[in-house]
Order: sequence, then C-alpha cells, then structure tokens
Amino acid sequence: MDNAKTEIWYDDLNPGDRYTSQTGILMTEAAIVAFAREFDPQPGHDDPVAAQRTFFRGLAASGWHTAAVTMRLRADVGFPIGNGIVGAGVEIAWPTPTRPGDELKLELVVKEKRLSSTKPDRGIVIVEYDTRNQRGEHRQHTRTTLVVFRDPSLTAVAT
Amino acid sequence: MDNAKTEIWYDDLNPGDRYTSQTGILMTEAAIVAFAREFDPQPGHDDPVAAQRTFFRGLAASGWHTAAVTMRLRADVGFPIGNGIVGAGVEIAWPTPTRPGDELKLELVVKEKRLSSTKPDRGIVIVEYDTRNQRGEHRQHTRTTLVVFRDPSLTAVAT
Repeated sequence: MDNAKTEIWYDDLNPGDRYTSQTGILMTEAAIVAFAREFDPQPGHDDPVAAQRTFFRGLAASGWHTAAVTMRLRADVGFPIGNGIVGAGVEIAWPTPTRPGDELKLELVVKEKRLSSTKPDRGIVIVEYDTRNQRGEHRQHTRTTLVVFRDPSLTAVAT
Repeated sequence: MDNAKTEIWYDDLNPGDRYTSQTGILMTEAAIVAFAREFDPQPGHDDPVAAQRTFFRGLAASGWHTAAVTMRLRADVGFPIGNGIVGAGVEIAWPTPTRPGDELKLELVVKEKRLSSTKPDRGIVIVEYDTRNQRGEHRQHTRTTLVVFRDPSLTAVAT
C-alpha cells in the first residue's frame, strides 16, 4: 500500500492490505515505570527490584502501556483514515510481556470489511495489528472493529 | 465483598462478586489532550477546536485513555489479586465517547472461573468492568481473561 496517501476511505481498504511502521518506539525502564505509576501501579510494572519476585520475573510494561504505544505506532504507520479512526471495539492478547529495551514495531493487516446495513456513508472494517520487538518477539495481538467512512466525493456523486 | 482484604486468590473469587470504585477520576480537557498527543494524535482527541468537525462533534478522550484510566480505577477499587493481576487477553467496547468533565467510576464483576488443566497452582478467571461517568453514561465495557493463582498456603498443604 501507498503509505503516503493523504486520506483512506472505506473503498480504499481491501482484505490483505498491509501497513508496517518504519521506525520503532523504544520502551525504556523509566517510561515503563512512569506509565505504570500513573495507570497500573503494581510491583511487576513499577518497581524494577520487586518485579523480580513477581509472575513476570523482572520488570514488564503494563499491557495498557504496550496498547497505548501500539496506537502511537499506528498513528506513525500512515493509516490516515478519513474522518479519523473510530474504534467500536477491540480484542487484545499479550502473548509475552514487553521488557525494557524492547523497540516495538507494528504490522497492520486489513482482514474483513462490510458496508453498514443502516448507514450508507460508512462501513465496518476489521483490522488486526501485531506488535513485535527488534527480535521479532510477539508482544501484542490486536483485533479492532473500526467504523470507516466512504469517500464523501463518491457518496456525493451517488446521490 | 470485603474491599479491605490484603490478597485475593483464585479460591476467593466467585461468579457474581462485585467491586466498585469509591472515588472517581475526573477527565479534564488538559489530560485528554496530553494523553492523545503522546499516544493517539488525532483531531478528535487532541484539538478541542478541530474536534468539533470530527465524528465525535467535540473533544473526546482516546479510547486508550479511557482504558488506561479504567485500569487505574481497578487499582484503586481494592482487587488485590495475589502475585498481581496478569492479563492474558481483553475485549473492550466503547459505547459512547468519554468527554471533558466526565468523572469516571468502575464496577467490576466476576463472571466465570476454571482451574488450569495443566498448571495446578492457578486458574483462569473472567472479570468484566463497566466504566461510567457521574450521570451513569456508559463509557467502556471491558471483558478480561486473567491468570489468577491459588493461595500458596493451600497449595502447600495439598502437596
């Protein structure tokens, strides 16, 4: 796909389309601890020493931090949905914990799409993301249900 | 349920158990914009003026901000899972957008549980959260699959 396209509409998306992030985001210990202190205060996420004795056996990013960074990577990927990305729902799995030193990258794949049965100006698109570090270790799988609008210029012609 | 319990283990949790947050978290315009600029830079989330012309018709928090605050509320609720809360997966739906001025609160309900078939020290527990504002408007529904350990003192007796 052409990552440089200004706006993407429902009709531009097709199952199998792939987008990948060009630059990664480095997960530092400081960033992991700061996010956890604000949103997910648990020893496994906000205390590098105490984290050694947790399920994670060492500091791990909150899954919500990995999720937020995944969304940041999506913004950088070049997936400029017209009218913005509107999420109706999402499923997330964290196969392995994100660690300090991970440089996260994103691959985005369009899986399915269908027009709305009630609103002719939009459709539903299922998009999946895989978030991996520099060694290809799989940190997050995301399946999102998006509301995506049709190109207004096409809709205008049709009326 | 007794929110003051020090640690909760698999055997302490039962379908129908409810936990509610005592204090809310206020979503200010400044906090909504700051989170969006870092993680989800889109006009509907990071620009109060441009947001008027988006799908949201005014500033709305990134769904990932609502999700992160939901996890913060969970930490405050008193749901002290022994060994920490380990999420294997999650499904999120955002029925309505979070707005500046929303004071978010959380209700958490235990839905199902089953012992691991392979690891006798733990089980899987399905927990659902509802995040609502001060008027009861439903901002997020969350269904989580958690790995929860059995009370180590009970497990020790059994061996």
